[in-house]
Amino acid sequence: MTRTPVPDSLGAIAALAETLPQRDDASARAARARQDQLTKPPGSLGRLEELAVFLAGWQQRERPAIARAQALVFAGNHGVCARGVNPFPQEVTAQMVANFEAGGAAINQLCREAQADLSVVALDLDRPTADFTEGPAMSEAETLETMNRGAAAVDPGADLLVLGEMGIGNSTVAAALANAAFGGAAGDWVGHGTGSDSAGLALKARVVAEGVARHAALPAIAQLAALGGREQAAICGAVLAARTARIPVLLDGFICTAATAPLHATAPALLDHCLVGHASREPGHARLCDAMGKEPVLSLDMALGEGSGAALALMILRGALACHDGMATFAEAGVAGG
Amino acid sequence: MTRTPVPDSLGAIAALAETLPQRDDASARAARARQDQLTKPPGSLGRLEELAVFLAGWQQRERPAIARAQALVFAGNHGVCARGVNPFPQEVTAQMVANFEAGGAAINQLCREAQADLSVVALDLDRPTADFTEGPAMSEAETLETMNRGAAAVDPGADLLVLGEMGIGNSTVAAALANAAFGGAAGDWVGHGTGSDSAGLALKARVVAEGVARHAALPAIAQLAALGGREQAAICGAVLAARTARIPVLLDGFICTAATAPLHATAPALLDHCLVGHASREPGHARLCDAMGKEPVLSLDMALGEGSGAALALMILRGALACHDGMATFAEAGVAGG
Repeated sequence: MTRTPVPDSLGAIAALAETLPQRDDASARAARARQDQLTKPPGSLGRLEELAVFLAGWQQRERPAIARAQALVFAGNHGVCARGVNPFPQEVTAQMVANFEAGGAAINQLCREAQADLSVVALDLDRPTADFTEGPAMSEAETLETMNRGAAAVDPGADLLVLGEMGIGNSTVAAALANAAFGGAAGDWVGHGTGSDSAGLALKARVVAEGVARHAALPAIAQLAALGGREQAAICGAVLAARTARIPVLLDGFICTAATAPLHATAPALLDHCLVGHASREPGHARLCDAMGKEPVLSLDMALGEGSGAALALMILRGALACHDGMATFAEAGVAGG
Repeated sequence: MTRTPVPDSLGAIAALAETLPQRDDASARAARARQDQLTKPPGSLGRLEELAVFLAGWQQRERPAIARAQALVFAGNHGVCARGVNPFPQEVTAQMVANFEAGGAAINQLCREAQADLSVVALDLDRPTADFTEGPAMSEAETLETMNRGAAAVDPGADLLVLGEMGIGNSTVAAALANAAFGGAAGDWVGHGTGSDSAGLALKARVVAEGVARHAALPAIAQLAALGGREQAAICGAVLAARTARIPVLLDGFICTAATAPLHATAPALLDHCLVGHASREPGHARLCDAMGKEPVLSLDMALGEGSGAALALMILRGALACHDGMATFAEAGVAGG
């Protein structure tokens, strides 16, 4: 089995912020200097310039590249569905995993278009986690084991990692994780998810408030076990494995970002190598990104999950690197104004 | 010479809104119905769904495609530069055209990445238009001739057209066109462009106010001749030619959008087949898009021009169509909830 950076206890994760690789500032500075010599007014490529510099810092080279982009979609089922928080049956999770495997979902098309290699990891779908309003969703041991499964799925040779998820009911889990990490009222974090009506929304808010209250005394990282499902734990494991290999990460929307909230609440630097691919339509996502200091790359009014917004953001990263690597400098092109 | 839709007088352009092809509602409805059967919660692909439906309506088919995307960058020089509105010399326009031709500019890299065929059309760079604060920038005849040059550059076999521009001083021209079309104060429309400082910004506002006041009595479409440069006229001609061939158009940022403001002010429907690719950092662009009822596809804090934001938006359109065409329906995938 691949050795992963996941420690033997959740409590030991905070210390990883000191021991995992950091952004290489020299490479980032070299990339910034290069940007300022390219044939354009300084700063005129806006976010594309920042993204190129970000990738340079994590890939430790002035001219970063994305030869191999890996996309991982983790799927799980959630005991909290017993509370009726979702209008769709839990069987849909497995049906959608089959759809991913057959190539019929949005993420399949977007990964092909963005040139990412997609793998789907179904996490014990026939054995949902426990209902977090009645007790912890998972034990610490199961959480660590699932984090290791997520970590082991990461190809250490990838240049960029796209993360996504699928799991009926997991917008409720996401709201609970975000609420536990960043406070406020449950109603600040719940949204319509996959088709809840207003009565469903009120129920979700009550269920989230119950779960968060029940586990409020736990440390931030323990909320991942108490509230989060398996796909959330796997995402956290993959984020840590990517960091170990200096692979920059594109998180998807609300649910994927919220999965990493326990890491952020434990040590924000654990997510320094992560970008948020898109601003979800789920109302809690803007608040969540603000709390985590992340500005999404795209905003396309999407709320699908699967990694779909992150895969689209990969296209923008490819554009940023094409400019960074391929443009002529003022000196090379003989253009005045450099 | 290719026959173009540009009439013999500017005054005849308004009537084109009735005679040019319209969106095919049946194809748009069929595309909308298809979207609602794809394996995702209805509406969850947000803007991607709208874009697929938009392209279906203009391409007259339930499943639109972009086999050939054409990108056209028009370049011109402007007499108003005599007023000192730009910190760079006009020679930079020709230098950047040479850079486009050598493949060294941002638009070259982005067109390669987005799979668009790029052509650059330099419009009499050694003969700037007249200073619009002293008289009309161009005669009606020259405007129509330049519109025809823009129209003739459009490949009627393209599935999508990306439009961009290059021209030292043309953020001043853009502000003047936007101000003339949509009112307000000159200061509402000017921005830093390619590196103006605050004194430069104040000068730009004065120059725009002078020009707009001088030509205020003219009909909207005549402002294109009075204020606009050649790249602006060529963009308008290309927009009309694309409409004739039912080719959807991606306009770039502030300058490219403002180039079409005289068409919008004459008959908004002339731009029904046009999308705005990105929200520019130039402060007048948000106001301009609001006035024209266009919501930009992307917002990446860019302000380069060249068609760079439109080329990036093409990537998103390709993602939208990949989903629209390639996803399984609920029935095909055996997923509940359709």
